[in-house]
Formats: sequence, C-alpha cells, structure tokens
Amino acid sequence: MNDLQYKDVRVLITGGLGFIGSNLARALLDLGAKVSIVDALIPNLGGNWFNVESIRDKLETVVGDVRDLALMQDLVANKDVIFSLAAQVDHIASMADPIFDLDMSGKGALTVLEACRRKKRGARVVFPGSRLQFGRPRRLPVDEDHPMDPMNIYAVHRLLGEKYHQVYHNAFGISTCVLRLSNPFGPRQQMRHSQYGILNWFVRLALENREITVYGDGSQQRDYFYIQDAVDAFLRAGSMEAADGQVFNVGAGAPITMAEAARTIVDVVGSGKVTHIPWPEDRSRQETGGYITDISKIEKALGWRPKVNFKDGVRQTAEYYRTHREHYW
Amino acid sequence: MNDLQYKDVRVLITGGLGFIGSNLARALLDLGAKVSIVDALIPNLGGNWFNVESIRDKLETVVGDVRDLALMQDLVANKDVIFSLAAQVDHIASMADPIFDLDMSGKGALTVLEACRRKKRGARVVFPGSRLQFGRPRRLPVDEDHPMDPMNIYAVHRLLGEKYHQVYHNAFGISTCVLRLSNPFGPRQQMRHSQYGILNWFVRLALENREITVYGDGSQQRDYFYIQDAVDAFLRAGSMEAADGQVFNVGAGAPITMAEAARTIVDVVGSGKVTHIPWPEDRSRQETGGYITDISKIEKALGWRPKVNFKDGVRQTAEYYRTHREHYW
Repeated sequence: MNDLQYKDVRVLITGGLGFIGSNLARALLDLGAKVSIVDALIPNLGGNWFNVESIRDKLETVVGDVRDLALMQDLVANKDVIFSLAAQVDHIASMADPIFDLDMSGKGALTVLEACRRKKRGARVVFPGSRLQFGRPRRLPVDEDHPMDPMNIYAVHRLLGEKYHQVYHNAFGISTCVLRLSNPFGPRQQMRHSQYGILNWFVRLALENREITVYGDGSQQRDYFYIQDAVDAFLRAGSMEAADGQVFNVGAGAPITMAEAARTIVDVVGSGKVTHIPWPEDRSRQETGGYITDISKIEKALGWRPKVNFKDGVRQTAEYYRTHREHYW
Repeated sequence: MNDLQYKDVRVLITGGLGFIGSNLARALLDLGAKVSIVDALIPNLGGNWFNVESIRDKLETVVGDVRDLALMQDLVANKDVIFSLAAQVDHIASMADPIFDLDMSGKGALTVLEACRRKKRGARVVFPGSRLQFGRPRRLPVDEDHPMDPMNIYAVHRLLGEKYHQVYHNAFGISTCVLRLSNPFGPRQQMRHSQYGILNWFVRLALENREITVYGDGSQQRDYFYIQDAVDAFLRAGSMEAADGQVFNVGAGAPITMAEAARTIVDVVGSGKVTHIPWPEDRSRQETGGYITDISKIEKALGWRPKVNFKDGVRQTAEYYRTHREHYW
C-alpha cells in the first residue's frame, strides 16, 4: 500500500465504531492520517467502543448522528476524505422497519453528502454499496453493469446511497466513489446474532463447539472476503484519482459454497459441527442464489485485489474473538 | 375503456389535488368508483382545490400528509386501489433541497406501502415513475430494461419509489405497478413557473402572447403525451391483473422536437412567438438529450396506447387555461 497517501490527511469515518469503520480507522492511523470518527451507537447497528479501545487516544471520537445536518456540516468542514459508513446494516431488520431503515441509511448518507456540498465540496466521499443491490444474479461473475433488482429494503437503500453519490459527483463536483461489497468477514463485526454477517456467526458457533446449521445442501456460492482486503479497497478509493466518480464491485472474486465455508471453519477452529436443515420459508424467499464478484474493474483501475485467502481469514477471525469474546458475545 | 372495472371500487388517490391525481379522480368517478383523495397542499407541490371544484361533492377529500403513517393506515384500510401520486415533482427544487425531497417523495411513497402492508395487503398500488430515471438514454426508443442513471435527486427518488413497489410486491405480496411516465401535459398542471411541466408553460406564454424561449436550436427530442392518455394508463394499471408486479414505460412513443412543439403551440393558440437562446449552463448539465418511449410492453400487456395527438392535446390544454386562467396564474 505504498501508493496510498494518507500522511496528515484529515479523515472522517461515519459509523466509525462499527465493523468496517473501526478496522479502517486502524489502517488509516498506521498510514499517518488524522482520524475522526462519528457514531451514534444506536443499539443493534454494530457500533462497539471496544472496536477502537486500543487506538482510542489517537482518534477524535464524536458520539453523534449522521442525520444531524448541523453536526455533519461542522465535522466535514475541515476534512479531506470521508468514509460514509454509518447505516442500518441488517437486511432482516430493514424488512421489519423499512421507514427507520430509510431514515438511518437513506437520509443519513444524503445528509453527509449535503454537508459536503455546503461546507466542503473538495472532499472525497467513499460509500459502501452491496452485492445485494443486484438481487438474484442473472449471470456470474457479476460485473458493474449487471441490472439491479434489490430484493429487500436494505439493498434498496444501498442502491439509493449509490445513486446519491453519483448525482453529487456529477452535479455538484464532489469526488465520490462507491464500493459494492460482497460479503466481508473478520474481526470487529457484531457477534450477538445471525441476522447478518453469517460467516462471523459460524465462527462463533464453532468457538462454542455448537452446531453450524447450513440451509439445504449448502451448495449456494458465496463470495466471502477478509476485512483487511475490504479496508485496502476503501483506502484506495479514498486516495486515488482513478476512483473519482466510480462504482466498483469488490469481493473475493472466487466463490466458496456455504457448506465448504462451514466445514473450513470447523476445521480451522477445531470445534463445532456442521448440520444441514431445510430452508426456512422466509429466508428462501430472500435468498439470492450464488454470487461471484467480477473484480476486474477495480483491479485495473485501482490495482486492488484480495490478498488474504479464506482459511487465513477465518484463522485470524477465530483468534481475535477467542481473545476478545467478552466484548462481543 | 370498457374493460376497466371500477364500478363501486374504493379508490384512494394521494396527491389527489395535483395534476395527474385530479384528472384521474374525474375519470374514476365517470367509471362509477368511490373516490377518496388525500393531499397535504404543501406550497409549490401542485395541489390546487380548483382542480376538483366541479367534482368536489362527489369525492371524499382529506387534507393530510402521506408521511403520516397513522393517517395512511386509516385511509388505506377500506380501499381497493391506491394511486400513490403525492410527491415533490419539481426536479430543480429537488436539487436545491434534496433532504426535503427524500422526505416528501421517498418516505411518502414508502409510508403508503407500509400502511398497506399493515392494514390492506390485498390492495393494488399504482406508482408513477419517470423517464428521468434513465438519465441520458444510451439508445432510443427506451425500453424497460434500459440502464438507469438518474441525473438529479427527483429522478433518484422516482427510482427509489419504483424499487420499494417491487420489494413490497415480491416480499409482501402487495399488488403493485409502476408507470414510468415520459412528459405528460394538459389541464390542471401548475402554471406558476417553468421549473417543471415546460410544455404547459409554453402554452401559458403563448396565451399571454409572450416569447417562448427554446434553448439552443431546439432539436432535442421530447416525448410529450396528453394527460387523458396518462390517466388511461393509470386506470388500466389499477384494474388489470396483467399489471401486477410490473413496471411499464409510458409515453407518446413518437418524438417531437422542442422547436416543433413550441411552433405548434404558437400556431394552435394563435399568439406568442418562438425565440432561441443559448443553453444556460445549469440546464445544460441536467439535460438528458433526446427521449423516445418504447411503449411496446404496456401495449402488449395492458392494451394501452396513446389516443390524443399532440396538436389536439395542445388545443384542449389551451382551451382549459384560457377559461380558467385565474385559478392557475
């Protein structure tokens, strides 16, 4: 990552106490950035003070809400790069309360952009999209031009955020980049329930020597990639000219089946057991089928590709939670 | 329209005092429907009591806001068909205040659907999308599968509403239909400014014997169609099984240039004058280029096609405003 210029760069991470935000904050500090984070610590949204405990004295931390335009104007005014990560990230919860999801994820992302328009048009803003924007893939691997038929409200609001970033780039000249992530996993994601981040949940079950239940035969393909690689993609998106105004699909680029993933976790962790159960009806309706990311665009434009293989990622994840279990269970 | 079964059907029109809503209410009454309208009469959003003056005693009218979930639950509970038209419809205003636009158009449309999920899953809900969802067309005519690159916040929120309706159909079983309209014109649209509904604005300028200014050479193609045809599309979408879960592009299907449209208006109205001015920079950046609707999908599925030619539409529009000018100027 020698080409990533972050020395003394002023960075704001919204949702900075969450999974991606806190891992990104760490990497940015290592690169010499001045890092501020803002997080509303809304229950069940993934924010966790422990995620930044060991770096807390090197960060500016603000407890506040991205929907607060006055606060956001104040926070973005002296920043160079903004990672707009605050959101409701649970797709099952998004279906239970779509109006809250809109407010948190839609209005939140828009308010960050609007603050930049008013106070800092020169900022770069990086936003995470999701592979769920595509719905059921019509072809694999999935490239950036694949049609988008989101199947849940979470995914609709990822798409909404993406379109906002494109409009603010094209109409207002703000430098934006959207990374449509497949399924990142690793340290610092919530571990309390299985509604999202299922890979991490499997690691928990294995650590507790419990049964890992896989729906059906587990042959559905997933594109899991390790958080360190996701962080690398965000770092590039926030610092490289070639990212301006772009949307990239980001993931492993190579599939693993659910069943293989579960077996590897049991194998690496050394405990737990894989069992298969029939698809629950509500999950089945939400299931998108197999997914593989076409990573050629981001590889070409930003020189990014994943470096951590699945097994090593699982090993580091298990190691992290084995050590810090009490802060996540 | 003999195949449109609306006798005693209970219909709710949100934004019912606006352009499309009030014309639709009239047609529904003619078909024997029991029509309720709700409108918040928010300034500049197009609601106008005069639009329903002659039918007011045949309607139930509620002054209220679609963002009010409790109210919407109450209103949808005993309805069969809902036309979800309430919105901020001015794309220029959407760029001035994107957060308000989200609230009005995004949260508003979502709240109507959420009310149906909670109180009336058997309802049909019809929603107007926009040709602006497509941004600059990559090919003409534009069919339903054309990629969507909205260039302004108004268009982003039309896309958002469309995706909501698809998710509520697929996940919650609500019967929804989205009609992506090109450029409807005609009686009962606002006439106070030119920020949207430019065709109507041209009619006003002609009626006042003023200059109609066309940007550049006026060679950009537009797909103007008369409100009566738009209403017919809504009536079909709200009553035909073949509309369930569908999205249709709706428009004239035949282009007219801006310059031709302006000349026809001057000719039909018998006053006014066409002049050309260079493109203003902000308008130029928002300009999508030519647009022609591919109407083959809706023609095949719902048997819809436009019946009123451009000149007759202009004549009826001019006649309406000549008579009722004081209620719109």
